[in-house]
Amino acid sequence: MRPRFSLEWQVGRHARQDDPPAEWLAARVPGAAQLDWARHHGWPHHWQADHFRAYDGLEDSFWTYRARIPALPEGRVFLICRGVDYRFVIRAGDRILHEQEGMFTPVELDLTGQAVAGEELFVTIFPAPKSRAVPADRSQADHSCKPAVSYGWDFHPRLISQGLWDDAWLEVRGRAHFTRSATDYSLPTDLQTARLEWKGAAAGECASLRWRVFAPDGALLAERMAAGSGNISLSADVRNPALWWPHDHGTPALHVSRVELLDEGGAVLDAREERIGFRRIRLVMAPGQWDSPAAFPKSRSHPPMTLEVNGRRIFVKGANWVSPEIFPGLLNRETYQEQLAQVRAAHMNLLRMWGGSPAQKEAFYNLCDELGIMVWQEFPLACNTYPDDAAYLRVLDQESRSLIARLRPHPSVVLWCGGNELFNSWSRMTDQSLALRLLAANCYQLDPARPFLPTSPVDGVGHGHYAFRDMDAGEEAWAVFQRSASTAYCEFGCPGPASEEVLREIIPAEELFPPRPGGIWQAHHGFGVWKPSSWLHLDVIAHYWAEPRSLEELVARGQLLQAEGGKGLVEEARRQKPAASMAVYWCLNEPWPAVANNSLISWPCRPKPALAAVGAACRPILASARIRKFQWRKGDSFEAEIWWLNDGWEGCDPGRIEVRIALAGETRDLLSWKAGRLEANCNLAGPTVRWVLPEVDCDHFELILDTPGLPGAASRYTLLLRDGEAGPDEGATPTMNLG
Amino acid sequence: MRPRFSLEWQVGRHARQDDPPAEWLAARVPGAAQLDWARHHGWPHHWQADHFRAYDGLEDSFWTYRARIPALPEGRVFLICRGVDYRFVIRAGDRILHEQEGMFTPVELDLTGQAVAGEELFVTIFPAPKSRAVPADRSQADHSCKPAVSYGWDFHPRLISQGLWDDAWLEVRGRAHFTRSATDYSLPTDLQTARLEWKGAAAGECASLRWRVFAPDGALLAERMAAGSGNISLSADVRNPALWWPHDHGTPALHVSRVELLDEGGAVLDAREERIGFRRIRLVMAPGQWDSPAAFPKSRSHPPMTLEVNGRRIFVKGANWVSPEIFPGLLNRETYQEQLAQVRAAHMNLLRMWGGSPAQKEAFYNLCDELGIMVWQEFPLACNTYPDDAAYLRVLDQESRSLIARLRPHPSVVLWCGGNELFNSWSRMTDQSLALRLLAANCYQLDPARPFLPTSPVDGVGHGHYAFRDMDAGEEAWAVFQRSASTAYCEFGCPGPASEEVLREIIPAEELFPPRPGGIWQAHHGFGVWKPSSWLHLDVIAHYWAEPRSLEELVARGQLLQAEGGKGLVEEARRQKPAASMAVYWCLNEPWPAVANNSLISWPCRPKPALAAVGAACRPILASARIRKFQWRKGDSFEAEIWWLNDGWEGCDPGRIEVRIALAGETRDLLSWKAGRLEANCNLAGPTVRWVLPEVDCDHFELILDTPGLPGAASRYTLLLRDGEAGPDEGATPTMNLG
Repeated sequence: MRPRFSLEWQVGRHARQDDPPAEWLAARVPGAAQLDWARHHGWPHHWQADHFRAYDGLEDSFWTYRARIPALPEGRVFLICRGVDYRFVIRAGDRILHEQEGMFTPVELDLTGQAVAGEELFVTIFPAPKSRAVPADRSQADHSCKPAVSYGWDFHPRLISQGLWDDAWLEVRGRAHFTRSATDYSLPTDLQTARLEWKGAAAGECASLRWRVFAPDGALLAERMAAGSGNISLSADVRNPALWWPHDHGTPALHVSRVELLDEGGAVLDAREERIGFRRIRLVMAPGQWDSPAAFPKSRSHPPMTLEVNGRRIFVKGANWVSPEIFPGLLNRETYQEQLAQVRAAHMNLLRMWGGSPAQKEAFYNLCDELGIMVWQEFPLACNTYPDDAAYLRVLDQESRSLIARLRPHPSVVLWCGGNELFNSWSRMTDQSLALRLLAANCYQLDPARPFLPTSPVDGVGHGHYAFRDMDAGEEAWAVFQRSASTAYCEFGCPGPASEEVLREIIPAEELFPPRPGGIWQAHHGFGVWKPSSWLHLDVIAHYWAEPRSLEELVARGQLLQAEGGKGLVEEARRQKPAASMAVYWCLNEPWPAVANNSLISWPCRPKPALAAVGAACRPILASARIRKFQWRKGDSFEAEIWWLNDGWEGCDPGRIEVRIALAGETRDLLSWKAGRLEANCNLAGPTVRWVLPEVDCDHFELILDTPGLPGAASRYTLLLRDGEAGPDEGATPTMNLG
Repeated sequence: MRPRFSLEWQVGRHARQDDPPAEWLAARVPGAAQLDWARHHGWPHHWQADHFRAYDGLEDSFWTYRARIPALPEGRVFLICRGVDYRFVIRAGDRILHEQEGMFTPVELDLTGQAVAGEELFVTIFPAPKSRAVPADRSQADHSCKPAVSYGWDFHPRLISQGLWDDAWLEVRGRAHFTRSATDYSLPTDLQTARLEWKGAAAGECASLRWRVFAPDGALLAERMAAGSGNISLSADVRNPALWWPHDHGTPALHVSRVELLDEGGAVLDAREERIGFRRIRLVMAPGQWDSPAAFPKSRSHPPMTLEVNGRRIFVKGANWVSPEIFPGLLNRETYQEQLAQVRAAHMNLLRMWGGSPAQKEAFYNLCDELGIMVWQEFPLACNTYPDDAAYLRVLDQESRSLIARLRPHPSVVLWCGGNELFNSWSRMTDQSLALRLLAANCYQLDPARPFLPTSPVDGVGHGHYAFRDMDAGEEAWAVFQRSASTAYCEFGCPGPASEEVLREIIPAEELFPPRPGGIWQAHHGFGVWKPSSWLHLDVIAHYWAEPRSLEELVARGQLLQAEGGKGLVEEARRQKPAASMAVYWCLNEPWPAVANNSLISWPCRPKPALAAVGAACRPILASARIRKFQWRKGDSFEAEIWWLNDGWEGCDPGRIEVRIALAGETRDLLSWKAGRLEANCNLAGPTVRWVLPEVDCDHFELILDTPGLPGAASRYTLLLRDGEAGPDEGATPTMNLG
């Protein structure tokens, strides 16, 4: 119906807009102009060593893509570009057909009468937008809708993508075709009957229009016919619809809405198809949340952060998604499939699409719809003061409307958010910032049924900590969380080094060990981000053990801290349910291989041990221990609170938790707790186990919670055991030479 | 140009919409149908005794107004109704011309060809909207845009107004007339050049259009001519414009934008005129506000609440306005003038138009523009859960658009707010409530230059306390404020009784003393609102003295508590500048005579002593004392911190504060403090004075701060002096019989 014709693209680099490129290189579309350049010139991988530095000058170039229009069948010819990064002009020959700023607004350009077969199409891309010449950091992105991460971040090198980052093709549309087509629905509180509404318009001549709705199993649920011209609106009720659920609460059922233009003989002239997932989303108050504040003068109650899907409160367990490639043009369904399989296996039900990274391609959201993974989608604002500036607001208006229109049909998208940490001191935007007022207005106008947050964190929500141990404060993140009372934990994590395999790939052999500031270890975020010791945190490793003697030891100890730390934080957030309602780990993935990072997955998709540990902490039902600290002394009275955690929607009789300690090759039974009924979506606090740690010859022990009645719910914690000589100040830090 | 013809209205009451009224009574327009009814039937004043109870049944009636169309000159005839309360149908004969729900959307109905001279116009008003039959309280208003206060409040009897509450007339428009006309401006940060833009459209034939802008002194600043048809847009720059300032910071300069349609000979066919006050308004962060939160997990910083006018931070001192009549139809320019003169004399620079009451008539905002009194305007939502309901949202959309369009030109209006206390437990709306998302979207779309708050209090802002002493907590409001750290105090107050004169007017002689629950004292809010003892607070009076022995003693003591309490709270809020930025007293006025109320003014406009006291606390510069408590013991070491407070925009050398105590007929010098420079808009904390209170025969003393260098800045505080026998529990409450 809408035959697609791919184009043979070439790309050239030039210093001024109107100067022709000196040479034309083969271009991959989707892709990035810089990658074509690097490939042509035989540059090494941008993700190895510090080769990314070679790209430094490229961001200030113009790039022009060109492609010749082939001979095409009869019909109206459209150029479709799903995404061009970032500001660009489209020409046919020397005639300007389109100008645009913004990578999230697709181009759909009717070439009929504007360009003919044999002519060349040109897409000229401007240098990366920068609001100022220096400093060369994220603040340069503060007047544009270009995602800020590629200007340099604590896990991302300075490397700003440019180019045709999503599919581009020519499309020939027949004598009749749809010019608009969208299916919407409403679902009342009782979830009994979904009212579907299709609205659209068609151009050209046809005999009739047929709209059909199919159940997830393909059964026809509704069919409507109409005359196929002008603005058309059709509706149909679906009774007792199969609902879309996140994967840990049911089946993510997807219906199909298909509309067709038919000729007199019933042949299909054009068709549009959408998938529909029926569900109701709300953010609601947690039990007791209205009781605070209690005292005069009274402020407001914290805003609601408990996600309710189809009337059911769901504890959110997930991670922050950062784009898994520096160049979003490299992303495709396969990349997403690999990552999302890890997410689902780790029992996570939500990804927060962090505003520093670009919104992803359609394949991502389609997969989330299919896999039942919920999506918290942010607009491209992060850690900057985006101004009350007419030119900026015009682009933001266009880009946000495009994103809302594109993502609105996806049932997986459950939440809009203005961007990352905008109400904090390092961003300095406020509720009065026009950019956020604009986003709130557009979301209300175009998508009122989906909740909207101006930013994260909002009042009551917590971000951080990002260390296993805060060396300045002299305390572990576990302790910080255990005295916190956030309504949701939307960023937190512990850094861990990449595996030896990854480190050997990116670091030249001569720099590999010991890691030192400067050089490749620093270029890949091992030192000097935030703090001198981030993200390798050699000082933290040395605090618990000593300076690592080998790469193997460094990786093993750093990864243990990340795994045990992240697991403990997620479980603590869950123990605070229902007052707390979200545990969203920072971060899932990374855009290139960092030597150390809070990410659970190394680039491109190599899980660290922390993924399994955090995944275990996300199991719907598990035995859990609240442990005060990681490092214990021989002679200390070890203690831990024993809990059952249940985020599932069914209650059960979980049976016994057998609490054991394994140390120095022996396992000792400490306690057996027979819990009563574990109600649906409820936790159960059990006994506190106490045991004086003996003087034995070993440096760690394991707390084991066996669950003979529910084998999949057992847990295990590795803890350090040290000689009893340390003073009261467990926070003392050994001196390390990081310079 | 637009001759107005008043109509002779009659009104009738009927039980069903289509039944004709049994009788037609003379109607006053603007007014209220119930008042016409009461007048006709010789009912006593609704504000005396409990006569309001007679109105109980009226709220469920239909009321139809009728008026005969007189013979009119040639031209298009319009019926203009500025406000009809609440749901209504307009007919000519039996033809329905207009149907509407909402009292804030004016009617402008072209009758040409629809109704002729001699015919009757009918406006049929529906029974008061109620979402449920019981309880008969404010919750019945939760599905409508009818302000909730008249459904019964802690200072308002149950009495729901209905009728033509604003002007209504016939207007004849000539062969050419404006169909739209609005002047807008932008003013850049440097305030140097205002860019004015007039946009409008005209119907009919004319030769030309003339737009002129006049300075406050009448001088012509700009003149533009255009062809007078279709959509027209004109612009003009005004360099170095006189700015609009609140009265305590400058002159509220008002320019005039006048546009005219002219015939060939230059005669004016139609004209529209607006006043323009050039100013920039922002809500900005207080110094240090970004420093918090400091610890992980980090939440957001509090939203900004410091008002900046023309680049200058202004400490807001003001009061909450509640409608000064139960029937808004009774309000007119004279009512407003009398009230606003009190406001300005009390050095207040802002009124918060509390969302429980209706937005006021144009005359109110015109006067505020002229007087330099800023207005915080709320939409008609208060203390209810307004639903995510399509029918309600449709009316709210219409009503909010009408309010924004009407009030947008007023320079005095500095802030939009969604409504009162909506994010608190007694309202249970949230940031996700569609009503508030709608209001935010409409304010952004129609009036982005004016700040918007979803409700008050927002995070960091405080409401309350509403008692001199909280008998349950056993502490005084002073102490509560002194340990608070709100960004703004937007409601707080102390109740005080009305004067004897007022009490004698409303309470029958036989009930006058002693006051007892039930009867008229309770009907007029002396008992049983919030708490058994509100608002008379006999228990608080008895705590400090004893049960009052006469009406005179009751009034004197209650009014002393209100005056000293309110003054102390305002001064404390000011001492917390710049962290705190607003002191908005609850409440300025009242809609009928309460026997006791937090209001500073008794109905209709009789100031209580607290008005002068709070007004003194609002002087731009004053000597101030932070005093820990109201009641002291002989032998106590009295102490007070001495301060200079300056909210003005000029610094000064204030000279000495002479601190004295007057007690038992003697005045003793305690301290003389010579302050240094008192900078603009800054406070200066001085010494703490300490003095052991002697065993003398008197029950009170006065702390006097004389300011010989600045005589208008002196202050004086009355405090109680008691024998030293009281135990450590100063909070002990004497038992009182309130039943």
